[in-house]
Amino acid sequence: MFELIFIPAVICAFALLSTLLFNRYLAKHDAGSEKMKELQKHIREGAWTFMFEEARVFAVVTGIIAVILWLLFYWEVASAFLLGAFLSMSAGFIGMHSATFANARVTNAAQHSEKKAFNIAIAGGAIMGLAVAGLALGGLTLLFLIFREAFNPATLAIESKAVPLVSSILGRDINFIKAALIVSAYSMGASLVALFDRVGGGIFTKAADMAADLVGKAEVHLPEDDPRNPASIADNVGDNVGDVGGLGADLLESFVGSIISVIVIYLYVYVGRSNASISALLEQLGAPLGLSIQQYWWLLIVPLLIISFGIIATLIALFYMVVSKRAKNLQATLMNGTRLSAILTMVFAFIIIYLSPMNFSVFWCILIGAFAGIAIGYIAEYYTSSAYRPVKKLAEETSAGAAIGITGGMALGMLSTFIPGLVVAIAIVATYWLAGLFGIAYGALGMLSFVGMTVSVDTYGPIADNAGGIAQGAGLPEKVRKITDRLDAIGNTTAAVGKGFAIGSAAFSALALIVAYMWSAAGSAGEVTIPTIEMLSANPKIGATVIAALFLGAMIPYVFSALLIQAVSDTAKKMVEEIKRQFRKFPDILKGKRKPDYNKCIAITSITIILPLLVGFALGKYALAGFLIGALLSCMQLAIYCANTGGALDNAKKYIEDGHYGGKGSEAHVASVIGDTVGDPLKDTVGPSLDILVKLMSVIAILFASLFPAYPIFF
Amino acid sequence: MFELIFIPAVICAFALLSTLLFNRYLAKHDAGSEKMKELQKHIREGAWTFMFEEARVFAVVTGIIAVILWLLFYWEVASAFLLGAFLSMSAGFIGMHSATFANARVTNAAQHSEKKAFNIAIAGGAIMGLAVAGLALGGLTLLFLIFREAFNPATLAIESKAVPLVSSILGRDINFIKAALIVSAYSMGASLVALFDRVGGGIFTKAADMAADLVGKAEVHLPEDDPRNPASIADNVGDNVGDVGGLGADLLESFVGSIISVIVIYLYVYVGRSNASISALLEQLGAPLGLSIQQYWWLLIVPLLIISFGIIATLIALFYMVVSKRAKNLQATLMNGTRLSAILTMVFAFIIIYLSPMNFSVFWCILIGAFAGIAIGYIAEYYTSSAYRPVKKLAEETSAGAAIGITGGMALGMLSTFIPGLVVAIAIVATYWLAGLFGIAYGALGMLSFVGMTVSVDTYGPIADNAGGIAQGAGLPEKVRKITDRLDAIGNTTAAVGKGFAIGSAAFSALALIVAYMWSAAGSAGEVTIPTIEMLSANPKIGATVIAALFLGAMIPYVFSALLIQAVSDTAKKMVEEIKRQFRKFPDILKGKRKPDYNKCIAITSITIILPLLVGFALGKYALAGFLIGALLSCMQLAIYCANTGGALDNAKKYIEDGHYGGKGSEAHVASVIGDTVGDPLKDTVGPSLDILVKLMSVIAILFASLFPAYPIFF
Repeated sequence: MFELIFIPAVICAFALLSTLLFNRYLAKHDAGSEKMKELQKHIREGAWTFMFEEARVFAVVTGIIAVILWLLFYWEVASAFLLGAFLSMSAGFIGMHSATFANARVTNAAQHSEKKAFNIAIAGGAIMGLAVAGLALGGLTLLFLIFREAFNPATLAIESKAVPLVSSILGRDINFIKAALIVSAYSMGASLVALFDRVGGGIFTKAADMAADLVGKAEVHLPEDDPRNPASIADNVGDNVGDVGGLGADLLESFVGSIISVIVIYLYVYVGRSNASISALLEQLGAPLGLSIQQYWWLLIVPLLIISFGIIATLIALFYMVVSKRAKNLQATLMNGTRLSAILTMVFAFIIIYLSPMNFSVFWCILIGAFAGIAIGYIAEYYTSSAYRPVKKLAEETSAGAAIGITGGMALGMLSTFIPGLVVAIAIVATYWLAGLFGIAYGALGMLSFVGMTVSVDTYGPIADNAGGIAQGAGLPEKVRKITDRLDAIGNTTAAVGKGFAIGSAAFSALALIVAYMWSAAGSAGEVTIPTIEMLSANPKIGATVIAALFLGAMIPYVFSALLIQAVSDTAKKMVEEIKRQFRKFPDILKGKRKPDYNKCIAITSITIILPLLVGFALGKYALAGFLIGALLSCMQLAIYCANTGGALDNAKKYIEDGHYGGKGSEAHVASVIGDTVGDPLKDTVGPSLDILVKLMSVIAILFASLFPAYPIFF
Repeated sequence: MFELIFIPAVICAFALLSTLLFNRYLAKHDAGSEKMKELQKHIREGAWTFMFEEARVFAVVTGIIAVILWLLFYWEVASAFLLGAFLSMSAGFIGMHSATFANARVTNAAQHSEKKAFNIAIAGGAIMGLAVAGLALGGLTLLFLIFREAFNPATLAIESKAVPLVSSILGRDINFIKAALIVSAYSMGASLVALFDRVGGGIFTKAADMAADLVGKAEVHLPEDDPRNPASIADNVGDNVGDVGGLGADLLESFVGSIISVIVIYLYVYVGRSNASISALLEQLGAPLGLSIQQYWWLLIVPLLIISFGIIATLIALFYMVVSKRAKNLQATLMNGTRLSAILTMVFAFIIIYLSPMNFSVFWCILIGAFAGIAIGYIAEYYTSSAYRPVKKLAEETSAGAAIGITGGMALGMLSTFIPGLVVAIAIVATYWLAGLFGIAYGALGMLSFVGMTVSVDTYGPIADNAGGIAQGAGLPEKVRKITDRLDAIGNTTAAVGKGFAIGSAAFSALALIVAYMWSAAGSAGEVTIPTIEMLSANPKIGATVIAALFLGAMIPYVFSALLIQAVSDTAKKMVEEIKRQFRKFPDILKGKRKPDYNKCIAITSITIILPLLVGFALGKYALAGFLIGALLSCMQLAIYCANTGGALDNAKKYIEDGHYGGKGSEAHVASVIGDTVGDPLKDTVGPSLDILVKLMSVIAILFASLFPAYPIFF
């Protein structure tokens, strides 16, 4: 049944082909007047410069890591890592291209037809969505095809002693399931690029935003999006870099993480199946002890199949949205399309699980995961949309003063962690109850199965936003701006849901990766055992180090966030200086200030790589599991708090700008602007980067699991 | 050796007697002019009204809980609970009395001699410090004396089946070590009052502060501390309620928690000593398997002895400070006194451990704990004092605008979690390595062993602050105000250290309580086993629920904080309305607005009681351990972040007021006031209440451990 792999292969090819079709659709439309084209060109150039610069710097880092992986493990592992990094980077480039290609076309189409403008924005989003899903899945499929031998059940656990260098130095056997290393390295590549994108993009976009505000206010009094303010182009570039590139890379990375955690756990369980209690786990999955080769492949490829049909569902839903004639209610079209993709994905998953030799309870895990993700998304919308009570109350508080507004925003963000915490806890218990250790991993897979659609809709938002900026910059009539504003507003609801969804799915997918890590750690001594992490233990060596590591882990997200916020302020300061210095030389200065501080990005990203290794080597592999869980717990709460505090303060400002409490220019508005400025880096830099932090650390832990000692040396 | 208990008994009596002496010393001094006496009277009346009202409301809650404990367990447990609550409440009253008795006397003395004023303020603080330590220890000693039979090693584990009602309903044996229940109930009583004080006082003080600002600014333009502003008296009252009553109750509660966790663990280990691996733990403590009755008492009473001699050390240090002639450098006197008490306590602990039959490594745990607590305290000072770079940098950022300042403050607070996280992790590994499961508990004991001194110095601060307020209100010459300001500034450094110390010790003491809980949970089935908590497990019933509970636990502190912040805003709003309504009728209105919202206090406190019971009954006793650890991890980070963000924003404001970046009235100053208002509830309401949250939940978990099922029913 290895041949099943050709189904994802074909579907990936089809998905990537469709991006070309969507691109042709875009190219058929005109980008409008010279002025509009020029604005588009500036944004495009800015975004490309940023991405190229980033890619160039990052290629060096990636290269060094690949060499280390090659020396430590196998060349296959190093190449899988490079593939993951390359594809993630490519997804960023494609998204950047489509977004900056579509924006002016949306503006132009908005002069004639709202539905046409909507379609173009959707097409731009679709390119990104399909590219993310297609590339991520395509890369994995490619690994299966190229390194088929490593996944072969007959030889799965043989190559253990093939790496004399490391095992002789450390006196330990290297992780003996090469296939698990290959998929993890692929995931690490994707995660690393995603974090770099998020950190780099997040710092740049908020620093540009801050700089635009400061320059606009302090130097000359220019309206928002005025092209004479060089920082405002940078701001538009930042939107693309952060919201398109960053979010796409983030979801791609969650997506890959959720697939590979199922695969890694499965590989370990399969290799250890002669152990009675492990074989019980296989039975829970619906596979009896005497698992045939056919069944082995079925179970291994099922995650890829589910994801593949998620892409088909996305394509159908995108097609529906473009073809749908209901020009009156585009909001409903967008919502229905998103719902359609989710429902279709679940129907396909149902059929696949039904046809597979798997226990049917796995389907329920997928369904629970999908529901949990959507629920967390909606909660985020409830707390951050001005349509509901929390933001309305926040606007009222803000009208009493900036300080009370910010305090209220913080309380709102903290309170918004309640339902997500509850939902995640229930989903964990339920999926675990249904399918044991596989349950959580399949839950994560379910959450991310229709990621293509999520990314498409999330990309639609910044495209519509940019289109509005271009309309303003090119001085188009009020009517056009109104249409682009409406398109933007339509996207905002789904975008809020999407952001919440990204956090929820990140938590679940990180947990699945931690479970996979523990299998790798428990199985690294040349035989597989069921992993256990004891927080308190009869074995003092474990008890002490795991608890200590939990504290360390819980502290890391705070420090990480602090560094990010500081990087934003510092970069903004530098940008302002640069802009002041070169203010008269526009447009040449664009190139000068478009550089984010790569050293900071690399420093912050490096922490993420080094920390798990440090904890693993110093405190041992059990402690590292504690560290990861501590970090995850802290990350999830902090990410939700930051995202929703920032989102609510932003929308409270917009609500006041809409004419409430005195509207624009009132004291309430001044207070709300202060609130928004405080919330911005929380929402756009800290929150999203935290999503990736734990996943990347976990995947690194999986890769290096076999090198860590069990306990600290001094014990 | 039971007779050893008379040593703490005598020392307690001596400590309480000294509070009378210090009170006589205060009474000998005059409170100054009529005007000053009147101001003092207002503050005193306000504080008393608040405390009485609080006590009255709370007596009902306490009574209900006592009846429940009586029905569920033994009457001894219920009375121990009442004793703990009563003593904690009394400590609050005594502190309130001494602070509001000393304040005007300090102002008056400041007209003649700085050293004299300093001495009076120290005497006021000493009353609180000695009362807290003396009452807490005295209550425990009383329990030993009265319920001696329950602690008798011969009968320790016998009375298991004596509670037919509950055990027959639930079909489970009640926790069979009555002595452990008695000390835990005592601790629960103290914790509950402490949380109520912290929540009630914290909400009241910040709401009054906010109301004073709003009324002062919006209604009439009155300077700070102007007696015509009724809210400013409320503000002064709030300082006493929050800083004196709250902090005292907080430290008392940590103090009791750290003692009883050692005792509970020890009782379980002793009862289970026939089990080979448990007896190994006893040997680690220096007690061989054939532990004699003499040794049993020694080991049980050692924690009380260490604490007793901590009180002696405090008395010596206080004496040194009052007698010291170095009037020039009072800062040094205060610091040296604090150091002296710490060093003496360690010397006494050294001697006690040396004389006891205990393994000497226990002393190192005590020393590590003390060091860790002090280190965390100093870190807090580094991040929040304007003498160091972080606050100076923050002031610079604030001068660029309120938003950038607040963002910088948040980053600073987040960054400040780094060293404490590291210190706690290292202390856990080190103490565990030295003395196994007892290590952490002894570390916590070491941290809190000189608590009398910490409380004294922490109470000194608000007394000096209040004295300044009275000098201002009574229109005394600038010279007097300068002296009180200087006395206040001297206290600020040690207060910052004290606040950090409270957080660090809370974390450690909560962890010790969680360990004690696990012993209670593991030992509840009628026999004692070594507790284990598995986060991931071969047993899916444990694996799933513990992880889920970790997520739930980590979310709780955020929700708790959100409720607190909302309560502050809501109460402030009500106060402002009340003040506006009655503005002309001063001073009668004082009584009207002095009521905090008790319903909110009770609601928030009840959550803390109900949550652990809910998790314990619904998800089982292992999951509850996960829940507590998740809450602790989140609490510690959030508490440090809130405390230091608030502290730094406060001092950045003061730094600007001192003339930097334009000084008072400048744009920088306006921005810093906004920052301070955001930081205030974080620092004075959220941070301190979080300290207590986990300890109270843990102690409740200990009490009810035997009633919880092992797994959820549906598994």
